[in-house]
Amino acid sequence: MIPSKDDLIRAHSRIKSYIHSTPLMRCESIDKICGATIQFKCENLQKAGAFKSRGASNAVFKLMESGFTGRVATHSSGNHAQALSRVAKFAGIEAHVVMPENSLKSKIAAVQEYHADITFCIPTLEARESTLAKVMQEVEAVEIHPYDNYDIIAGQATAAKEILEDYSPDIIIAPVGGGGLLSGTALAAKYFGNNVKVFAAEPEMANDAKLSFDSKTFVPSVNPQTIADGLRTSLGDLTFPIILDHVDEILTCSEDSIVKAMRLMWERAKIMAEPSSAAALAIVMNHPEIFKGKNIAIIVSGGNADLDNLPW
Amino acid sequence: MIPSKDDLIRAHSRIKSYIHSTPLMRCESIDKICGATIQFKCENLQKAGAFKSRGASNAVFKLMESGFTGRVATHSSGNHAQALSRVAKFAGIEAHVVMPENSLKSKIAAVQEYHADITFCIPTLEARESTLAKVMQEVEAVEIHPYDNYDIIAGQATAAKEILEDYSPDIIIAPVGGGGLLSGTALAAKYFGNNVKVFAAEPEMANDAKLSFDSKTFVPSVNPQTIADGLRTSLGDLTFPIILDHVDEILTCSEDSIVKAMRLMWERAKIMAEPSSAAALAIVMNHPEIFKGKNIAIIVSGGNADLDNLPW
Repeated sequence: MIPSKDDLIRAHSRIKSYIHSTPLMRCESIDKICGATIQFKCENLQKAGAFKSRGASNAVFKLMESGFTGRVATHSSGNHAQALSRVAKFAGIEAHVVMPENSLKSKIAAVQEYHADITFCIPTLEARESTLAKVMQEVEAVEIHPYDNYDIIAGQATAAKEILEDYSPDIIIAPVGGGGLLSGTALAAKYFGNNVKVFAAEPEMANDAKLSFDSKTFVPSVNPQTIADGLRTSLGDLTFPIILDHVDEILTCSEDSIVKAMRLMWERAKIMAEPSSAAALAIVMNHPEIFKGKNIAIIVSGGNADLDNLPW
Repeated sequence: MIPSKDDLIRAHSRIKSYIHSTPLMRCESIDKICGATIQFKCENLQKAGAFKSRGASNAVFKLMESGFTGRVATHSSGNHAQALSRVAKFAGIEAHVVMPENSLKSKIAAVQEYHADITFCIPTLEARESTLAKVMQEVEAVEIHPYDNYDIIAGQATAAKEILEDYSPDIIIAPVGGGGLLSGTALAAKYFGNNVKVFAAEPEMANDAKLSFDSKTFVPSVNPQTIADGLRTSLGDLTFPIILDHVDEILTCSEDSIVKAMRLMWERAKIMAEPSSAAALAIVMNHPEIFKGKNIAIIVSGGNADLDNLPW
């Protein structure tokens, strides 16, 4: 069932000691460039470097509350894999992760450091799912899906819940890949916000969520070529309906504008945003007709950029 | 006169609305690597990207309190120039800065953005001082020295004052260039700390402060070739005696260890430290016999790294 207001409150108290309550940061010069007031919710400073620690902690510790002592498994291009591996280590259970072979080296290294078992596959959704099915059968593991899981969605929602405890934005913007963060954000805005709009940012080169949203019909993402490696996945069966009902608009941005926004965040705000995170600032910069003069919260989803291959 | 405890308290309340009270951040994996508990005082998130905003704000607004309406001038390789330009703009007065011609492009651009007047010179202390003297005479400006000024020292001290309001470290570590931050940190530790030791970090390639400290005799820095561009300057007439009296030890580190520490801070802690800031973590990593098991605060002095020339 779609997480209720109480589910979000319970998720937040369940995970609080395993995550950071990340800071909101402002940057005068970015505000000036955008003509808006932007608070960045710094999930790049979250445990394991991304908001994914919220959902993974909620899903794993909710399982543990019910007496679970088995293994968990997932497929992930990186941040969810890191988050799940980290929380499994805390919980004292084994994590098995399927990663596409083009995942960032730094993300693979981080998963290895948490002692998770990694299986690589080719970078298609089909290969990820079939490899995961095989791994789960072999080791008898329970799947913790990176986004299409209500406990994950409730966990990701706590980022926007924290924003709304500290700030009253007109608009919250989250990037959209599989839609876990976006659907959670939309639910938190509905339950805890005061008439706050929810926008999503997506690369033009991976615009399946926008096509799905605008046509109200699921459109899959097929091996998209975007620098925003966290946004390459398709929407899920559980995330898509929530997004359709509670998100105001999905806007897309070019690869160039993502790199420009990312550089601005690093150089001016000293916020190490990974490309997926910079998409949200990119849409603000590209659409002054929508965002000028507004109070905006941007969820900086993660900071796990590959320092050997920065895009400038 | 050497700033008193009251001078530091007054400085802090004078500048509070012009600076950030920057966060302390911890990183599990860096703690694990070092076998210590390290709180990073994130002055890279300070206004204008470095602790220098503290001293510049204190010096300029103290001048303004006494009715000053003239021009201010300084020489600086970058961070003090940015900080002074920014605060002069707030105060509504003109800033004139002399910058060595090998200053980072990003630092020059930031100074230009605050509409300060820049004069370039060759990168020696003599050239900086003679060029500044000329500029000051031409425009009738008052010098705000980057470190050899008690109001600057009192301002820089507020970073350690904030640390000690939130945390009880065994040791505070600051990098040392001209000694403004270090002497201020040592005063704050003495006035507000509970038996806290103060260590300084300096590049081996610019070890004039260590030579001066160990021999108790001023040794100048002569065009040193270190990646830590903020630490190339010599100690000052005002900073050196405070450092001699109140600092416990100065340790040096190799260029390689600075780059390694900087990368670790970026990759694991998502803290964008400029090389000068990474020197402090480098000495912790190089000296487990001193730092292991300790509660340490490291002042991350600034984050104005050149994103087009990262050292890895």
